[in-house]
Amino acid sequence: MTAAEVRAAIRDGTLAGPTERLAPDYVQANLVVVPRAYAGELADLCARNPVPCPLVEAPLAPGAHAPRSAECADLRTDLGRYRVWRDGELTEQPRDVRALWSDELVAFLIGCSFTFDHALSEAGLAPRHYALDRNVPMYRTRVPLASAGRLRGMMVVSMRPYKEHEIERVREVTRPFRVAHGEPVAWGDPAQLGIDDLMHPEYGDAPVLEDGDVPVFWGCGVTPQSVIVASRVPFAITHEPGHMFVTDRLHDECARNHRSVAAAPS
Amino acid sequence: MTAAEVRAAIRDGTLAGPTERLAPDYVQANLVVVPRAYAGELADLCARNPVPCPLVEAPLAPGAHAPRSAECADLRTDLGRYRVWRDGELTEQPRDVRALWSDELVAFLIGCSFTFDHALSEAGLAPRHYALDRNVPMYRTRVPLASAGRLRGMMVVSMRPYKEHEIERVREVTRPFRVAHGEPVAWGDPAQLGIDDLMHPEYGDAPVLEDGDVPVFWGCGVTPQSVIVASRVPFAITHEPGHMFVTDRLHDECARNHRSVAAAPS
Repeated sequence: MTAAEVRAAIRDGTLAGPTERLAPDYVQANLVVVPRAYAGELADLCARNPVPCPLVEAPLAPGAHAPRSAECADLRTDLGRYRVWRDGELTEQPRDVRALWSDELVAFLIGCSFTFDHALSEAGLAPRHYALDRNVPMYRTRVPLASAGRLRGMMVVSMRPYKEHEIERVREVTRPFRVAHGEPVAWGDPAQLGIDDLMHPEYGDAPVLEDGDVPVFWGCGVTPQSVIVASRVPFAITHEPGHMFVTDRLHDECARNHRSVAAAPS
Repeated sequence: MTAAEVRAAIRDGTLAGPTERLAPDYVQANLVVVPRAYAGELADLCARNPVPCPLVEAPLAPGAHAPRSAECADLRTDLGRYRVWRDGELTEQPRDVRALWSDELVAFLIGCSFTFDHALSEAGLAPRHYALDRNVPMYRTRVPLASAGRLRGMMVVSMRPYKEHEIERVREVTRPFRVAHGEPVAWGDPAQLGIDDLMHPEYGDAPVLEDGDVPVFWGCGVTPQSVIVASRVPFAITHEPGHMFVTDRLHDECARNHRSVAAAPS
């Protein structure tokens, strides 16, 4: 399936469930929609915390719902599930948010680690959840974000277990995907990030662990949802974790762009 | 004194001591020099951790010591004190590093919060250390950086005490100075950053505290020095904390650029 076909099937209601493994060559994105009065602060929060919150494209104009990164797409209908937040509380989980949209809202698309799961698989390092067709486990940490105006919160991470000898290779494969959180932020003891219970993630499915597994953690685009809660943003719309927006951007392109930038100083 | 005059006086040896309060309209910078083989990773570390490590300009070409941000300047002679690191250990503190320079080295200039201390003073919020002509206290935290290849470490922060009712205004004044770490990362309990003893900073002078003070913490460009130690970089040159490189860039310009970017989405 192409990215456009995935979006069309979601819009028509013929496709449900997380978007992992769908249109695997394309960049997937987290959606965050906030009132115009919070847009400058959210742009700042993303700029100050680019590992959990890398922007896939510049924030849309107020009221706009057609992103630049996907043709003929509509952010109000082309994600499988949405979350609606009022004063930092989750109040609704609709399949379509057209009735809630207005010129007072600004949409942000933030990178997602699903973008590199396919690359990991092609390198012979398929993430466990990917191989088992489960949703990736995601955790709220106690690592504070650099705050921005009224917005503050803690970093959320996704976790993929690997064997010790695989970690350097996993880091190398994911490093170029900077728009998709890049290389891991940490691995080993979950306590270093303030994660108490690895078996009970706050988002996604519980992990399936084997003897000798080392948990490896990446920044996660669900982070803004923890910010919406911590900062009691009066109104916000996000995607449901795992149910991403599929763009027309090839992840190979993003990785290539990064390689040319990273090579510059040498 | 202009920035060029400060650099000339330091080069000639007629001026010593920290550069705080000198040429107060100009952006000051932290120096980090690493082997060419680490330059890509350091560029990546800065991009992934822009609050403690904002780049004042792109990394210099290998071997170059004339930065773009200052005319007729020489990074080997124009800082008051240097630190030389071998395998992550501080080995020398020379006044000049010409004899150590080679085509195998790449220099980075990273923003410094001294840049906004003058703006805080002009807003009637002079930082305590600034008013008392002391060096700012700086602390190693337990907030992990997003690692980059072989480079990892913990964030270093600078601290300025303020009264509770001043904090929002302090945040506003420093927010636009993104190239100088921008607004605070945290305030209140030092334990939230893993700082055990506020009276014993790892760098700079001990703070002078009054009743009712709330410690306010900013990202600090000394962070790469903690990375050099934690990552055992085989060779590195940095400035001595507080003894910064004074650029010809006006901090007003940097703040203005930021304001126009932040205003974009609304």
